Amino acid sequence: MLSRLGDIAEVINAEIVGDPAYGISGAGTLKNALPDQISFLANRQYSEYLRTTRAGAVVLAREDLQHCPVNALIVKDPYLGFVKAVRFLYPEPAYQSGIAPSASISNSALIHASVCISAHVAIGAGVIIEENVYIGPGCVLEQNVVIGKNTRLVANVTLCHGVRVGERVLLHPGVVIGADGFGMANENGQWLKLPQLGSVIINDDVEIGANSTVDRGALGDTIIEEGVKIDNQVQIGHNCVIGAHTAIAGCAGVAGSVTIGKRCMIGGASAISGHIEIADDVIITGLSGVSRSITQAGTYSGAMVVSDIMTWRKNTARFRHLDELARRVAVLENKLKKET
Amino acid sequence: MLSRLGDIAEVINAEIVGDPAYGISGAGTLKNALPDQISFLANRQYSEYLRTTRAGAVVLAREDLQHCPVNALIVKDPYLGFVKAVRFLYPEPAYQSGIAPSASISNSALIHASVCISAHVAIGAGVIIEENVYIGPGCVLEQNVVIGKNTRLVANVTLCHGVRVGERVLLHPGVVIGADGFGMANENGQWLKLPQLGSVIINDDVEIGANSTVDRGALGDTIIEEGVKIDNQVQIGHNCVIGAHTAIAGCAGVAGSVTIGKRCMIGGASAISGHIEIADDVIITGLSGVSRSITQAGTYSGAMVVSDIMTWRKNTARFRHLDELARRVAVLENKLKKET
Amino acid sequence: MLSRLGDIAEVINAEIVGDPAYGISGAGTLKNALPDQISFLANRQYSEYLRTTRAGAVVLAREDLQHCPVNALIVKDPYLGFVKAVRFLYPEPAYQSGIAPSASISNSALIHASVCISAHVAIGAGVIIEENVYIGPGCVLEQNVVIGKNTRLVANVTLCHGVRVGERVLLHPGVVIGADGFGMANENGQWLKLPQLGSVIINDDVEIGANSTVDRGALGDTIIEEGVKIDNQVQIGHNCVIGAHTAIAGCAGVAGSVTIGKRCMIGGASAISGHIEIADDVIITGLSGVSRSITQAGTYSGAMVVSDIMTWRKNTARFRHLDELARRVAVLENKLKKET
Repeated sequence: MLSRLGDIAEVINAEIVGDPAYGISGAGTLKNALPDQISFLANRQYSEYLRTTRAGAVVLAREDLQHCPVNALIVKDPYLGFVKAVRFLYPEPAYQSGIAPSASISNSALIHASVCISAHVAIGAGVIIEENVYIGPGCVLEQNVVIGKNTRLVANVTLCHGVRVGERVLLHPGVVIGADGFGMANENGQWLKLPQLGSVIINDDVEIGANSTVDRGALGDTIIEEGVKIDNQVQIGHNCVIGAHTAIAGCAGVAGSVTIGKRCMIGGASAISGHIEIADDVIITGLSGVSRSITQAGTYSGAMVVSDIMTWRKNTARFRHLDELARRVAVLENKLKKET
Repeated sequence: MLSRLGDIAEVINAEIVGDPAYGISGAGTLKNALPDQISFLANRQYSEYLRTTRAGAVVLAREDLQHCPVNALIVKDPYLGFVKAVRFLYPEPAYQSGIAPSASISNSALIHASVCISAHVAIGAGVIIEENVYIGPGCVLEQNVVIGKNTRLVANVTLCHGVRVGERVLLHPGVVIGADGFGMANENGQWLKLPQLGSVIINDDVEIGANSTVDRGALGDTIIEEGVKIDNQVQIGHNCVIGAHTAIAGCAGVAGSVTIGKRCMIGGASAISGHIEIADDVIITGLSGVSRSITQAGTYSGAMVVSDIMTWRKNTARFRHLDELARRVAVLENKLKKET
Repeated sequence: MLSRLGDIAEVINAEIVGDPAYGISGAGTLKNALPDQISFLANRQYSEYLRTTRAGAVVLAREDLQHCPVNALIVKDPYLGFVKAVRFLYPEPAYQSGIAPSASISNSALIHASVCISAHVAIGAGVIIEENVYIGPGCVLEQNVVIGKNTRLVANVTLCHGVRVGERVLLHPGVVIGADGFGMANENGQWLKLPQLGSVIINDDVEIGANSTVDRGALGDTIIEEGVKIDNQVQIGHNCVIGAHTAIAGCAGVAGSVTIGKRCMIGGASAISGHIEIADDVIITGLSGVSRSITQAGTYSGAMVVSDIMTWRKNTARFRHLDELARRVAVLENKLKKET
């Protein structure tokens, strides 16, 4: 189905340079888009592709207009404009309401008539599911789970007992919400588990990536505030609070009882130690370890990066004696002070 | 249901200062507990909350008694005492025995009558399941799996063929036990897989967190000894032996053929290289890499931690020339030696 | 069932020293193999076990023949020879074709008669499955997935809509292919998701370990080329291209739009930043961070390793002032220059 370029311009609030009646049916990269597709230029690194693009239209900043050989949509933030255009071109798929015959549903569950429940779903006692929710194949909802409107569980998602999920939440395959936190006491060398009495609250507009896990709280609840975006294979420990609109990239791990502020960006493969607080608007670069609270907004880094193995070995061998090296420098400084 | 404080004191072996007839129905933090709940003070950091707590009773050390405004239970290790109190107040839920109609079970499986098998469970040929086991929804047990008494698979757990699981084991959602190890030979640039002939043995009282994986052995078995506690998203490679009562925190990875001793604590997001041994009673702090055997008990660390990005960049830039810096220091030392 | 040693020798192209009629029924380590089992010596570290082995035959290099007390099969690469012998002794299990009654299959799916579809599998509209494919219990194939001949999905695997999987691919339990990539724009502090329009193409002879995830592309596709081997809990971001015959060890994370060359080896727990390229034949050691493109074949390392915690603390304290230390050394050098 074709959309008029003029309609797209209106949706993304762009100035159009070209033919408003031009038809667009999809989206692609500058390099590969076809004449019925829209593209964008957000990163000057790709400017070369603009001059030769076959796209039907390009979302771009005014400075790049001169090099655009096709219809242009001028906006301040071309990536944001493009995202809005794609969302307009590809609206969320509609699901047919109904319950698959193979689903296993407790009699005491309250499920709105508009909900779609797929094959092999298991739903426990006391579960409540609101309007227009989609539960994909193989999902397990233990007892007393509550799911808000327009939320989607893609497939093979597990929500443990009592977990509460808000509206417009998207949970990707393999996500586990509400497994027990890792809490135990040691008695004579053996571990005694603390029953995990809390739950998990996932607020509105949260997205959680494939195979990520969010543990239930020990006494209070683990809380994921509204608009938080979590990538794949992220682990969130018990009693964490993740502030609104924070994004956490893939393979990051957050230990228990961590409070992360609002609008933070946590890089991939980062690890955050337990019982610390991170302020609002903090950026942690990837593969970084955070072991103390961060009280100031800003960007923090802690990742070593590769060099060729010979260089690396020489430098790390010196690192193992860095304290000694620093002492030797102090000795030299003292000698020179005495001499002069 | 209310429990008498005197009964709790007896269970946790505490000296009671207050009313033994006082009724307790649950547990909470010092800050949030209600008058029918028990709480604890183990970390002085939270002392301020003791003076104003509304809890019905507090498990604490004798030194803190003077500041306790409510009933007190005095023990040596307040966290351990509290864990025991909570376990008394919240006994393991009992499951109704029986087999869900949607479960798919091989005729040759031997399943004790007391077992609970939930919806959409698949059980292969030759599987043996002992008394009081709970198999949650969506679990897959391939052929010849054996599961001991009182073990619980929460949901969507996969046990591959021949895996043996002991008694009182707890496997959280998404756990995969017995997938193939990563073993292969290279022939002219292409990989040839070694069929993984071993299995996995999970001993008694082991707990394994959500989406963690334990690979089957290549020739012998992978072994998780009794009382080992593994957090979420941990990977254990083929032919590892994890010693009794060792705890491994979230997102840690253990490569193949690693032997870890008894009562070790492996920090979150740590990585242990293949074919090494770690002694008993070793503590590895989080985000640390271990590439050689550790033969002595003790605490080991290898994690860099974040600083603000400008400081970090300056220091890592110097690190890339650390060997050269050390040589320059040696040159200075030689010069000064000659001069004096 | 016994295989003749002479037949094994022929299969692995070995020179036999011993009895070609000797019967072998399995495989084991030098230390533990029984007289009806074959073993190997590839690592001199295990030479001591050769002299006392009870194995029926040993695959080894000519230099080690003198110490072999049993039948010997002489080859250039003993590990490769052993892998071939085990593959001969343990051929892939054959599955009975057929569709489990509990499977839920769209009427519009095209499934070859030789396929085995296990219990609680869900197959969406337009799915195509070729000859001799095995789909284990609990797998979910969304609409329009295509699976080539002789591919095996072990259990609880999720393939999202439109994912294409080649021939002889092996996907372990919990694998998720084609979940949405982590792509979004920020508008006034809130995240707006870019619909992920691409898909994932898994080529022939790929193996992907338990609970690993490969995201679908944003505009183009994510591509795993032929013969790639991916271990457990690995994350591959959207629009990555992983070159043929590359191996990626457990817990590694690859961010979006990364191109990795052919025949690379990526160590466990490594993390690769987005939008970079890694040349062919690159080896990255474990727990290393890669944040810039690597244009030359070779071995690269970036992992710090543990020391005892006191030494570590002293050295990292110095690291936090490394830039200052380098400046102090420069000052000393200048002083000495002026003096001389």
